[in-house]
Amino acid sequence: MRAGIIGTGLIGRGWAIAFARAGWDVSLWDREPGAAVSALSSVKTALGDMAAVGLVANPDAAASRVRAADRLAEALQDTDYVQESVPEDADIKRGVFGLLDRHAPDGVPIGSSSSSIVGSRFLSEIPGRDRCIVAHPANPPHLMPVVEVAPSPWHADAFVVEVCGVLASIGQVPVVVRKEIEGFVMNRLQTAVVNEAVGLVARGVIDPADLDAVMKHSLGLRWALMGPFETMDLNAPDGFLDYAARYGHLYQAMGRDLHVGEAWQDHALQTIEDSRRRETPRAAVGERMRWRDRALMRLMSLKNELESPAGGN
Amino acid sequence: MRAGIIGTGLIGRGWAIAFARAGWDVSLWDREPGAAVSALSSVKTALGDMAAVGLVANPDAAASRVRAADRLAEALQDTDYVQESVPEDADIKRGVFGLLDRHAPDGVPIGSSSSSIVGSRFLSEIPGRDRCIVAHPANPPHLMPVVEVAPSPWHADAFVVEVCGVLASIGQVPVVVRKEIEGFVMNRLQTAVVNEAVGLVARGVIDPADLDAVMKHSLGLRWALMGPFETMDLNAPDGFLDYAARYGHLYQAMGRDLHVGEAWQDHALQTIEDSRRRETPRAAVGERMRWRDRALMRLMSLKNELESPAGGN
Repeated sequence: MRAGIIGTGLIGRGWAIAFARAGWDVSLWDREPGAAVSALSSVKTALGDMAAVGLVANPDAAASRVRAADRLAEALQDTDYVQESVPEDADIKRGVFGLLDRHAPDGVPIGSSSSSIVGSRFLSEIPGRDRCIVAHPANPPHLMPVVEVAPSPWHADAFVVEVCGVLASIGQVPVVVRKEIEGFVMNRLQTAVVNEAVGLVARGVIDPADLDAVMKHSLGLRWALMGPFETMDLNAPDGFLDYAARYGHLYQAMGRDLHVGEAWQDHALQTIEDSRRRETPRAAVGERMRWRDRALMRLMSLKNELESPAGGN
Repeated sequence: MRAGIIGTGLIGRGWAIAFARAGWDVSLWDREPGAAVSALSSVKTALGDMAAVGLVANPDAAASRVRAADRLAEALQDTDYVQESVPEDADIKRGVFGLLDRHAPDGVPIGSSSSSIVGSRFLSEIPGRDRCIVAHPANPPHLMPVVEVAPSPWHADAFVVEVCGVLASIGQVPVVVRKEIEGFVMNRLQTAVVNEAVGLVARGVIDPADLDAVMKHSLGLRWALMGPFETMDLNAPDGFLDYAARYGHLYQAMGRDLHVGEAWQDHALQTIEDSRRRETPRAAVGERMRWRDRALMRLMSLKNELESPAGGN
């Protein structure tokens, strides 16, 4: 099987790693000359790092399956799946999809990594729009496996199932976003948290570093293992409806009091920036990013173990 | 050092484990006869489970430091810190704090595990209110170390620092909630996510199991390692303010479109319950809860390793 990866920024490279890890051949293309070639070395490095924590069995073989194409048509040749990850701009995506639809083999699905633009805004005029669909990954795709498959009104159910099947076959976790909605699901949940967090800092309720501590030392630990509904289901003797009956009034009252719909205050943003620089000085940011990526790999490895049959799930 | 743990439900037992793990003696008391004695065995079991993943060095010694008291005054004798974890009811807490303040040694801080009631609603009339303060843990306290220390208007800064010092000394992560606000911080962030999640299911945007998948296979992985502000800071070339300048307008526009202030729809609640029972049948819930607790221990162990100096942070 061969994947065509169009656009080789962080997201495109993550897709390349995910397909190569699963045994696929991968062709990379980027509109900026040289970008695809230079992506090869970071793909190889990431595969090596993942092998070190047991996430890839044979990193050299995986890396050898990834090649850079000089021309777009060459990158699309003999592909079984194509994924677009160009900049988040409806005009750019519309133009790229016109080319992809023209040159990709007949019937091959073409996914878009669009993180906020719904498919109707850039796919509706594409002749082969039936095989072009939003498939929004988390960032980075090879370490956070969810992909939001977000059909537009014209898509057939069977096509959605087919795309989900491809993604699941390489170890990603496809979910279907059934309506064209701003931010899909992932970014809406993230926005709810971020906006409330900014509002709390704006009101002087909590220091930014302490807010981050609340997340990473409580809620985030739980949510790394189970989503909000399962969490609630397991926290009442008779399950989710019992939980809703006991505590629903508190959630609904508090929901009316939250700050998620408010504008961000400049003074709060400055307070957060100042706090971040105290916690991680500018010169230490690169090292912290490498720590984050290694930590995500270790976490993914732990979760694979916990979710295997021997892990008790 | 000795801690008095008042109320021996899940939260009180978690506190007992946290203090005993740190080398403190612990006295348990519960208003229900026999409850404190029966808590001893679950404390011992949990300490053994934690030892198995390296979170406790000597579980038998830790368990032997925990004893059940017959009378409240006996549980408070010779304590250096007292933590109340009785039911979430202002009248009950007010009554218990009257007794605790009367019988606890002079000057010993008394924390309340109140998860939603602010201190002014049950502490303001207590003669020794200066030493009585909300110290709200996550659940369970021994596996999710954040404690929200939420002073009331009358509290001295030095006292807040003292309480945070005690909690930090046993390995918890105290944060200060500087204003008396509904839900403190943790439950407000949780409510933002839960209410949006319920709203998305109500609109048929996503299936409940898929929403849980989005959390545990993307956002939750990130948030287990770093909070929202650090996440944003590391995701733009020039830090948090750069991130805010690039993407702030998207967050603010989406924030106005979220469902966090809406009432929960009954049909959505039923859809979630039905989904949960397909994923985890009633008979499998107990096993899943044990899996969750073991998984949290493994995750805490991994995070301890990642956050040690050798872990690269």
